[in-house]
Amino acid sequence: MEEIKGVKTWRGMTVDELVSGMRDCAFGAGRLAKAADIYEEMLREDTTKFIAIAGALVPAGMRDVIAQMVRARYVDVIITTGANLVHDIIEALGTHHYKIIESKMDDPELRKQSMARIYDVVVHDDAFARLEDFIRTAFERMNPDRSYSIREVIEAIGSNLSDPNSILKSAVDANVPVFCPAIADSMIGLHTWIYKQMNAAFHVDAFDDMKELIDIFCDAEHTGAIILGGGVPKNFLLQTALVAPPREDGREGFDFAIQITTNTPENGSLSGATLEEAKSWGKIGTNAKAVTLYCDVTIALPVIFAAVQARIGR
Amino acid sequence: MEEIKGVKTWRGMTVDELVSGMRDCAFGAGRLAKAADIYEEMLREDTTKFIAIAGALVPAGMRDVIAQMVRARYVDVIITTGANLVHDIIEALGTHHYKIIESKMDDPELRKQSMARIYDVVVHDDAFARLEDFIRTAFERMNPDRSYSIREVIEAIGSNLSDPNSILKSAVDANVPVFCPAIADSMIGLHTWIYKQMNAAFHVDAFDDMKELIDIFCDAEHTGAIILGGGVPKNFLLQTALVAPPREDGREGFDFAIQITTNTPENGSLSGATLEEAKSWGKIGTNAKAVTLYCDVTIALPVIFAAVQARIGR
Amino acid sequence: MEEIKGVKTWRGMTVDELVSGMRDCAFGAGRLAKAADIYEEMLREDTTKFIAIAGALVPAGMRDVIAQMVRARYVDVIITTGANLVHDIIEALGTHHYKIIESKMDDPELRKQSMARIYDVVVHDDAFARLEDFIRTAFERMNPDRSYSIREVIEAIGSNLSDPNSILKSAVDANVPVFCPAIADSMIGLHTWIYKQMNAAFHVDAFDDMKELIDIFCDAEHTGAIILGGGVPKNFLLQTALVAPPREDGREGFDFAIQITTNTPENGSLSGATLEEAKSWGKIGTNAKAVTLYCDVTIALPVIFAAVQARIGR
Amino acid sequence: MEEIKGVKTWRGMTVDELVSGMRDCAFGAGRLAKAADIYEEMLREDTTKFIAIAGALVPAGMRDVIAQMVRARYVDVIITTGANLVHDIIEALGTHHYKIIESKMDDPELRKQSMARIYDVVVHDDAFARLEDFIRTAFERMNPDRSYSIREVIEAIGSNLSDPNSILKSAVDANVPVFCPAIADSMIGLHTWIYKQMNAAFHVDAFDDMKELIDIFCDAEHTGAIILGGGVPKNFLLQTALVAPPREDGREGFDFAIQITTNTPENGSLSGATLEEAKSWGKIGTNAKAVTLYCDVTIALPVIFAAVQARIGR
Repeated sequence: MEEIKGVKTWRGMTVDELVSGMRDCAFGAGRLAKAADIYEEMLREDTTKFIAIAGALVPAGMRDVIAQMVRARYVDVIITTGANLVHDIIEALGTHHYKIIESKMDDPELRKQSMARIYDVVVHDDAFARLEDFIRTAFERMNPDRSYSIREVIEAIGSNLSDPNSILKSAVDANVPVFCPAIADSMIGLHTWIYKQMNAAFHVDAFDDMKELIDIFCDAEHTGAIILGGGVPKNFLLQTALVAPPREDGREGFDFAIQITTNTPENGSLSGATLEEAKSWGKIGTNAKAVTLYCDVTIALPVIFAAVQARIGR
Repeated sequence: MEEIKGVKTWRGMTVDELVSGMRDCAFGAGRLAKAADIYEEMLREDTTKFIAIAGALVPAGMRDVIAQMVRARYVDVIITTGANLVHDIIEALGTHHYKIIESKMDDPELRKQSMARIYDVVVHDDAFARLEDFIRTAFERMNPDRSYSIREVIEAIGSNLSDPNSILKSAVDANVPVFCPAIADSMIGLHTWIYKQMNAAFHVDAFDDMKELIDIFCDAEHTGAIILGGGVPKNFLLQTALVAPPREDGREGFDFAIQITTNTPENGSLSGATLEEAKSWGKIGTNAKAVTLYCDVTIALPVIFAAVQARIGR
Repeated sequence: MEEIKGVKTWRGMTVDELVSGMRDCAFGAGRLAKAADIYEEMLREDTTKFIAIAGALVPAGMRDVIAQMVRARYVDVIITTGANLVHDIIEALGTHHYKIIESKMDDPELRKQSMARIYDVVVHDDAFARLEDFIRTAFERMNPDRSYSIREVIEAIGSNLSDPNSILKSAVDANVPVFCPAIADSMIGLHTWIYKQMNAAFHVDAFDDMKELIDIFCDAEHTGAIILGGGVPKNFLLQTALVAPPREDGREGFDFAIQITTNTPENGSLSGATLEEAKSWGKIGTNAKAVTLYCDVTIALPVIFAAVQARIGR
Repeated sequence: MEEIKGVKTWRGMTVDELVSGMRDCAFGAGRLAKAADIYEEMLREDTTKFIAIAGALVPAGMRDVIAQMVRARYVDVIITTGANLVHDIIEALGTHHYKIIESKMDDPELRKQSMARIYDVVVHDDAFARLEDFIRTAFERMNPDRSYSIREVIEAIGSNLSDPNSILKSAVDANVPVFCPAIADSMIGLHTWIYKQMNAAFHVDAFDDMKELIDIFCDAEHTGAIILGGGVPKNFLLQTALVAPPREDGREGFDFAIQITTNTPENGSLSGATLEEAKSWGKIGTNAKAVTLYCDVTIALPVIFAAVQARIGR
């Protein structure tokens, strides 16, 4: 049992000073400090770091931070929803997202103006038209007569980007593989399917990525999970640990885990499931350094990253 | 503006009497009544009814109700997570889920006993071993030298079941197609991949289902969405409406929509996004009959189904 | 460990049949069944039943159900927020609450129309003017030259009502004391203060109710807590058990407890605190029959009451 | 509509740099930046700043930050739950709160060890015994033969403290009045009642504070509300604005409002009600600068305070 010591603040304090100052606090503050400490430890150890990205983080403005994290190898593997790739590419193509006052919006009116809403963000339908052209062009550069894994398709698409602030472009440049098991559930999935109608031999297998991901997990000295939100990325990430055989020293599951979410367990969903529950599956190691931070990712992620950057130096 | 009239209860009242009695209430009660009314209207109209199923509904005991809904054609199309199929098949094979007191559990201890936990439910690892054998046997009955859509793979698996209380078996019997775009994110996905290692020609395409789903949507006289939880099933369902062209009379998006969730919009996620927001995308029609009921699905679904059964008569 | 057995539904099923059928389900369904079972047990034992009422239940249409519960002595003591009393009296005086579509409202516009909003309910300012007249008249009938407890003030106000569907009138008729420790935080509090300005000797003590409540608790054979929402009513109710000395047989804290809320523990608040946590304070007995049902009260309360009415027969 | 620009981070960045960098983000990040901007504006204008404090902020480690805010006159009026005063005094008396791992606790076991739990914090019962002695001593220094307002009682208690990190002591030193309308719902309330049993003339009126609070509101040039959590403090604060007459220039309600909560509106509660809804009551001005930040207060409050400290310079 540690004595609670209140956090203090002062003029000009750095993010790291504030997060470190929360170490002896409880509730969310204590968990925020613990998340930064675990991330720091992950980086100081030889850890293969897997990040699961759900939620509309790109529309909300988290693109640059995640791209920075990728380029600085704060993550080694990305598992994401298709939506975040879609919005990342849209920005890379020069079309933008806009913030609105969500209590003043009229959704039928937005529809008439061809503006699609994501909470307090809108994007114009033109962005999706430009995406369509880009995806088609990217596919036309690929060899249509072979089968691809989803990871390979995403990498091929990303190699056509030039924006260094793009998460996908940064992943391609940094050799960070990007997995998206539910890619059919996205605009990229739609345009891939449309392309397939005219190129019958273009085949994307739904399962080929599993081996690659499991191999990366098994080859790792230590494994770390950074789970942003829930959904398929969280489950697919944890499933990888479930499937991988135990290590020689008996360890199974992730050695480190940070979960940042606003979902809580009471509705029984996977998205809100605790990391403790994951231990019963062998997905998280019984002795893992793990914490769930109940916080909006758009607040927690930049704060944690800025704190750890100060400690690690890159 | 309708005057609020309190709901009254009496000894021996039926579920339908209670739900109907909530029509002039507000908050969750009013929405529960509205959800039942919308479902009733969906059934009385010529409506193709799509259900999106997320959350661990089968482990929680919702299997029978959903199977009943399928057999009675309260749903015409299912879009689900792989997890619900996995747990449905496990039960169909005779292995069971068990309820525990979740404040008294010790997850490392459960791990030692090979019991995997889903909130206040556990299942023994043996269940997954039996699942593996079953999936492999089902695949061995399939022609390995062609490409399959995920829907076809699921149907082939389901045709090997005999349990009438199985959601999947009921869907096969009732000719209700089952879509699972993120099937790689499940035990079925894992065993499919394992089977593929030994049967190289066995292809499952990640995208082939999109056409089938869009065709069903376009062929429908009216379309209804029943969204349980969020995640990929919700997004894939709404994406279908997004992609389908407008109808001759100008309608676009779903004509009816019922969303039952405990996720709320403030974290910007798709899972918590409102049906109003979906109108800005053209996913839900501007004039649609739509309601979001903020309630645990395991409470709301049986209540709504029982109420509507009384009205419809099947 | 109990085997999970799915709930089934059928045409014309009663509320009690549905709730009982959920006994072998998990998540919210299992807890709903358990809440009804605990309430039934409370009623069959010699139990003094304390209900803590927070949330805008009266505006939402729960007034009749709670009044029924009071008249049928399903509750023996009420601890409430001032708001529920205010809205109960407003209805009793013949002014009404109205339901609106909350996605179509414009709050500044409502202000211009003198309509105050509570989520998807509105009430006209005139209702509060009528309340003011009524409260003043009620005070004028009281002896201004003595000190009152808050409970006595509430009872005096209630004795001026005639509406049998009023919670307060029902409590007066059924001899159920009504406590409201935070009455200053309500319109009644405001009008009480205004009255005091002109009647300097009219004194309402902030603390006199504590003894009465503790005595009721100590005199009880068994004690049961029904907690709707959180806030002051929940805390004041549990604090009563904290303060009361242990019984001869060593029991301390409530013997039975049902909590219905949508608040969860992760933000550390009292409102979301679990009943397990309350055991560490001695507020709930270590061996108590207790359950927290995570559900909107406007759905759960009528369902539980209707189920128990069928079993108890009144 | 503002273009979304991602936040960037760098080594050694300050809290203010990070919060300012979130101005063009959406979701929680955008609201965090807006909250800091509104607070800064409040401080630069002649604004009487009212803070409503709910939640177990003191046990979680927020005591020092709030005391700093009080001493630096970032707040001019405090409305709080009794619990925060209780825990603040406990710390001032030298007894401490301790952090535990909440997944490893056993509440009946904690009870045996006389440790009371608040989520992941525990405190020993001895702390409450010391509180009792302190409160009694403080009362013995008061004149028993007059009536007190609750604010006066709290101030009298606080004048006996010497700890500069105490919120209450800081309020006494800075002449910041502390209101606690639900004080009966706390240990202080309990000990006040016990004292009253032996000092019959010691009256604490439940309503006397209303006038003082309304006068402060009416005398203000501009008014600002900082709402931490919900419950009675939030309602009592907003009720003050409801009751105060409009100003000469027609303004009514608070001019500025910042709400930090994890409660959302869907259950109809006051705690989760939006600031927009408050405009329909005239509690928040139609043209007010207002924002709700959905975030754990223990994270958001120190971040906002540190950011504003850097801008304001004290």
